[in-house]
Amino acid sequence: MMSNYVTIRGFVGTEIKCAVAGSGLPIAKFRLGSSDRYFDKKTNAWVDGDTNWYSVSMFRQLATNAGVSLQKGDRIIVTGKLRVRTWITDEGKSGTTVEIDADSAGHDLVFGTASFRRSSADRN
Amino acid sequence: MMSNYVTIRGFVGTEIKCAVAGSGLPIAKFRLGSSDRYFDKKTNAWVDGDTNWYSVSMFRQLATNAGVSLQKGDRIIVTGKLRVRTWITDEGKSGTTVEIDADSAGHDLVFGTASFRRSSADRN
Amino acid sequence: MMSNYVTIRGFVGTEIKCAVAGSGLPIAKFRLGSSDRYFDKKTNAWVDGDTNWYSVSMFRQLATNAGVSLQKGDRIIVTGKLRVRTWITDEGKSGTTVEIDADSAGHDLVFGTASFRRSSADRN
Amino acid sequence: MMSNYVTIRGFVGTEIKCAVAGSGLPIAKFRLGSSDRYFDKKTNAWVDGDTNWYSVSMFRQLATNAGVSLQKGDRIIVTGKLRVRTWITDEGKSGTTVEIDADSAGHDLVFGTASFRRSSADRN
Repeated sequence: MMSNYVTIRGFVGTEIKCAVAGSGLPIAKFRLGSSDRYFDKKTNAWVDGDTNWYSVSMFRQLATNAGVSLQKGDRIIVTGKLRVRTWITDEGKSGTTVEIDADSAGHDLVFGTASFRRSSADRN
Repeated sequence: MMSNYVTIRGFVGTEIKCAVAGSGLPIAKFRLGSSDRYFDKKTNAWVDGDTNWYSVSMFRQLATNAGVSLQKGDRIIVTGKLRVRTWITDEGKSGTTVEIDADSAGHDLVFGTASFRRSSADRN
Repeated sequence: MMSNYVTIRGFVGTEIKCAVAGSGLPIAKFRLGSSDRYFDKKTNAWVDGDTNWYSVSMFRQLATNAGVSLQKGDRIIVTGKLRVRTWITDEGKSGTTVEIDADSAGHDLVFGTASFRRSSADRN
Repeated sequence: MMSNYVTIRGFVGTEIKCAVAGSGLPIAKFRLGSSDRYFDKKTNAWVDGDTNWYSVSMFRQLATNAGVSLQKGDRIIVTGKLRVRTWITDEGKSGTTVEIDADSAGHDLVFGTASFRRSSADRN
């Protein structure tokens, strides 16, 4: 079922924060910005639209590999499940966060070249 | 309009064929295999499904960068537009090809690490 | 380019608000809820996840047709462009809204039957 | 995992063939055509592209509801899993079929209005 899945082309907007959960699960988190371009029929040209910001979470082998591969500013593709969460603090502040629980990610080869080193473990 | 767009996680199944069209347009082509895994409720385990095969076409900067970055066997993500084409030869043979006109591609960081070198030209 | 596009299966969570912009453009807006189901390997069963809430905007013929076709509670499919917007009021309150600028929508035939009446105008 | 998933906006190109498998499973099958429109920068206008043809398969409640709701020529949205299959007959003929194993489908409200009648059974 593909409902709530997205593929985003964007840029790494922050440093990658890596951690290991108490259970031993590797986790990586960062902010992803994505500014879509669209064709403006009035000006007859492609222009940048507003930037969508997402909080990306990665787990297991993807988190470990992303931690050593991705840097702030890198152009990447991310595919995963969208989670829109509304929260309220004890002080009564509320807000909404837009998260992507990433299935996979990679450098966007439209913007550069990459050399790949396969992990010894084949499967995640 | 996202109709007919796909994101595929798979593996490079052939060598990358690079060429330059008469107009100077760089082109890269290869076959992409994608074997989806699914949860088998009978055996209570994840198993590999059949392999979908796609003919991927890349153009411009993506073709140039893919030509030096991708190798047969690499695990990648590809996103682009699906084209299902039926053809008939002069001899009366007919067939169907399933093509992806790629917008972007990158190494799948679930399966390894990558070091990225950004092109001097920022935009495609 | 499919970046930031989503297809959501969910339910109409509010009444449909229809309006006509000063320019004569028909607009329809409503809230869409989507509760994804996932397979819980611990309990060996499919369970409902949390609900994602989206603000859906429709325009032109889609807005007009949705206004007479969709009702609160209907199960639907929506496909369109995701817009994550951060706003600040003059009073200093800030927040995030998650919008879908819909390309298309329809009743989800997994949950019922539908009779369709085509508009005289063929194209949007 | 959204790999190999597609959302297609198109039209029902054949009658809907309904059947019940020996196991009692309802099945519906039809051909789906999808002609994407694109902006031609040379002529500065939107034009129709070639038509992609898909073989759609539906099962269970979706098959039953589609059988009484969809008619040849209807504009619909379909979302599901793509299967690219290569086959060889005993006589040595080979070919490729492009199937969508549909998760969901509905009438495309860009092209008309629909009245929905919910099934008594809520879940598929």
